[in-house]
Amino acid sequence: MSETSLPKTGLSKTGLSKTGSVLSSVDWLERGTIDIFPNQVESQDPSENLVARLQQTDRPLRIKFGIDPTGSEIHLGHSIVYRKLRAFQDAGHTAILLIGDFTARIGDPTGKSEVRKQLTEADVKRNAETYIEQLRPILDFDTPGRLEIRYNSEWLSQLDLAQILSLLSTMTVGQMLAKEGFAERYKKETPIYLHEFLYPLMQGYDSVALAADVELGGTDQKFNLAVGRDLQRHFGQRPQFGLLMPILPGLDGVQKMSKSLGNYVGLTEDALAMYSKLQKVPDVAVKQYFELLTNLPLDQLPTDAREAQKLLALEVVSQYHGREAALQAQQDAETILGGASDQAKSVPEFSLSAIEFPAKLFYVLSACGLCDSSSEARRQIQGGAVKLEGQRVDGVDQTFASAADLSGKVIQVGKRKFRRLID
Amino acid sequence: MSETSLPKTGLSKTGLSKTGSVLSSVDWLERGTIDIFPNQVESQDPSENLVARLQQTDRPLRIKFGIDPTGSEIHLGHSIVYRKLRAFQDAGHTAILLIGDFTARIGDPTGKSEVRKQLTEADVKRNAETYIEQLRPILDFDTPGRLEIRYNSEWLSQLDLAQILSLLSTMTVGQMLAKEGFAERYKKETPIYLHEFLYPLMQGYDSVALAADVELGGTDQKFNLAVGRDLQRHFGQRPQFGLLMPILPGLDGVQKMSKSLGNYVGLTEDALAMYSKLQKVPDVAVKQYFELLTNLPLDQLPTDAREAQKLLALEVVSQYHGREAALQAQQDAETILGGASDQAKSVPEFSLSAIEFPAKLFYVLSACGLCDSSSEARRQIQGGAVKLEGQRVDGVDQTFASAADLSGKVIQVGKRKFRRLID
Repeated sequence: MSETSLPKTGLSKTGLSKTGSVLSSVDWLERGTIDIFPNQVESQDPSENLVARLQQTDRPLRIKFGIDPTGSEIHLGHSIVYRKLRAFQDAGHTAILLIGDFTARIGDPTGKSEVRKQLTEADVKRNAETYIEQLRPILDFDTPGRLEIRYNSEWLSQLDLAQILSLLSTMTVGQMLAKEGFAERYKKETPIYLHEFLYPLMQGYDSVALAADVELGGTDQKFNLAVGRDLQRHFGQRPQFGLLMPILPGLDGVQKMSKSLGNYVGLTEDALAMYSKLQKVPDVAVKQYFELLTNLPLDQLPTDAREAQKLLALEVVSQYHGREAALQAQQDAETILGGASDQAKSVPEFSLSAIEFPAKLFYVLSACGLCDSSSEARRQIQGGAVKLEGQRVDGVDQTFASAADLSGKVIQVGKRKFRRLID
Repeated sequence: MSETSLPKTGLSKTGLSKTGSVLSSVDWLERGTIDIFPNQVESQDPSENLVARLQQTDRPLRIKFGIDPTGSEIHLGHSIVYRKLRAFQDAGHTAILLIGDFTARIGDPTGKSEVRKQLTEADVKRNAETYIEQLRPILDFDTPGRLEIRYNSEWLSQLDLAQILSLLSTMTVGQMLAKEGFAERYKKETPIYLHEFLYPLMQGYDSVALAADVELGGTDQKFNLAVGRDLQRHFGQRPQFGLLMPILPGLDGVQKMSKSLGNYVGLTEDALAMYSKLQKVPDVAVKQYFELLTNLPLDQLPTDAREAQKLLALEVVSQYHGREAALQAQQDAETILGGASDQAKSVPEFSLSAIEFPAKLFYVLSACGLCDSSSEARRQIQGGAVKLEGQRVDGVDQTFASAADLSGKVIQVGKRKFRRLID
């Protein structure tokens, strides 16, 4: 890993290299990592140096990561922290997926937040299951002792007022207002409701309840992870290490990957869709994608930009769909680029038996999942993005009388989304 | 009551007088009261005008006053709020003594406060009982429905995190920091611990749990009483009225009455001690003492200053010891002023049977309660403040061989504290 690929890292390469060969065994730890704290790299004190902690522990460490069970499709941007969790698992440690069901079930007590909607117990359970299911290709679910899934209502619902006063007493108003976000809002006189001060403490108390040794988070989590350390100290535990992961840029190479910006690759996308997107990752982002989404040695990447994109796409698709499907997707993508989309074998199939005929084109697009809604399908047809067997179809109200009219044909929206329609 | 006697009152005499004769029935309400809020005196809306509320209610109102069960001797300064509670009782309403046992049992969660010591359940119970016992001469303990004694652990210990988040969500950081005390500390960067923000909300929630219609407090309680209103509104209750009482000046007429300043009259002091102190209340404070400590019409007070002092002393002593004892104390005080202290009949008696002879003088003074400790007794003897049968005694180590040496004699410390020693 080159120095320049991690401009903002808190890890001192110089410091780490001093301990020499021992370190090669924890290269996985620093790959892509923005910051570890504390990080006294020259120390052998296992409370100050995570490498020392990993080397000296005689039990699996407990690696916490919190998930908000509000239900969403996971994309590659989310995957990087789970890949780090997997690296800990592979090194023999225990990944703990902490489902924040307690706060999700409360919702926003002021009733003002659209974001923090109140969810039922059933909502939370379903969302958590859907979410976790998407992690199967990344995490080790099978090796005993490598994965714990916990819900924080287990302990948060048991707290009483005396305990909550005690939690609150560990911090001052000034310390809390120094937190990024709060500081700006206080300055701008945007109301900060008192209960918001409890959330970092609740997250911190989760670390106490889990006896976490390490907590992973995004760079915006540094304050909360530090609160966890304070509370663990307060409760007589050895404070956890914080490990911060960066944000993955989206397919535009500029903005952060997010569903709302449309610059994302969902983990459940089919191999061809995934490959088609990844083979076009802009050059500026390719190296970071390799670093964060693969385990390939970064100093052995293809020098040719096109080859690098293809290798990246192949590697990532392999993780989610297996090597064979990834190779097929690669071949199909080449075929499609060559114009013969109906020859692509890895096009996902959709059974027309789910559709009632006669059916309008926009309905078929929506039903087979190429478009999120009928109205999006209408827009795509009107925009000329829809092809049937490689031919543009632009009649919004075009109707198909029976399944036979479509069976065996490949329908396509834009350049990357395909379905092979079957009986 | 004259306008000038209540310079700081929030009550508008002009506004109140408009409703005419009806008001004479609630004169007790405004006597000595600093502020009532809300106080839309021209309104007949029982949510905005406490007089209207009192007139329109078809049930006894619930009048809350909170007590910190840290255990202390009550003095006349404390009594004024209890006298107001008694006035509500006499008007048919329910006085609620709220014992803040929950916070007392937690103590200061930071462990830094000397003031907020953690008390055991037994401490709290004993303190509360001792405290309440001193209120017997003031409050109506006997008429059914006139007195409720409640402990806030009853509901505070039942609160869970979801409910506490909900309580906290009713206020913003800015609102809380605007509270007197917090504002100054925040400005001076004196640490404010987060749990301190919960105390006003807990006090407010007490009002919800008690369904209080009125809460009494000192002038420093306005913020907390207003929080109670907000929380009652939040929980769908009609918000309580706040009623603020002033601070009684001490016997020096200048500083607030307090035990530590020594300028106080304790409610358990004997009639003569009480009378002796009160007959010397400085002229500047006499009228306020009449207003806050008696029910006498303020426009019919003696014009002669000495007569006013004597009437004040007689009136107040009567409340705590009965008319007969008060008259006796008055007579004795006059006798003592005339120099014949051994003739004073109301000198409290102390049985020498509690003392083991031979006994030193300082021990006798401490044992009979004239001095708080042997060391104080030594100081008083050395200072020349101790008299036996009117004669100064200045031998610190003076020893009495048997009870017969003291029996029937009056022993005195300073000008106001006497004991008649009996077998």
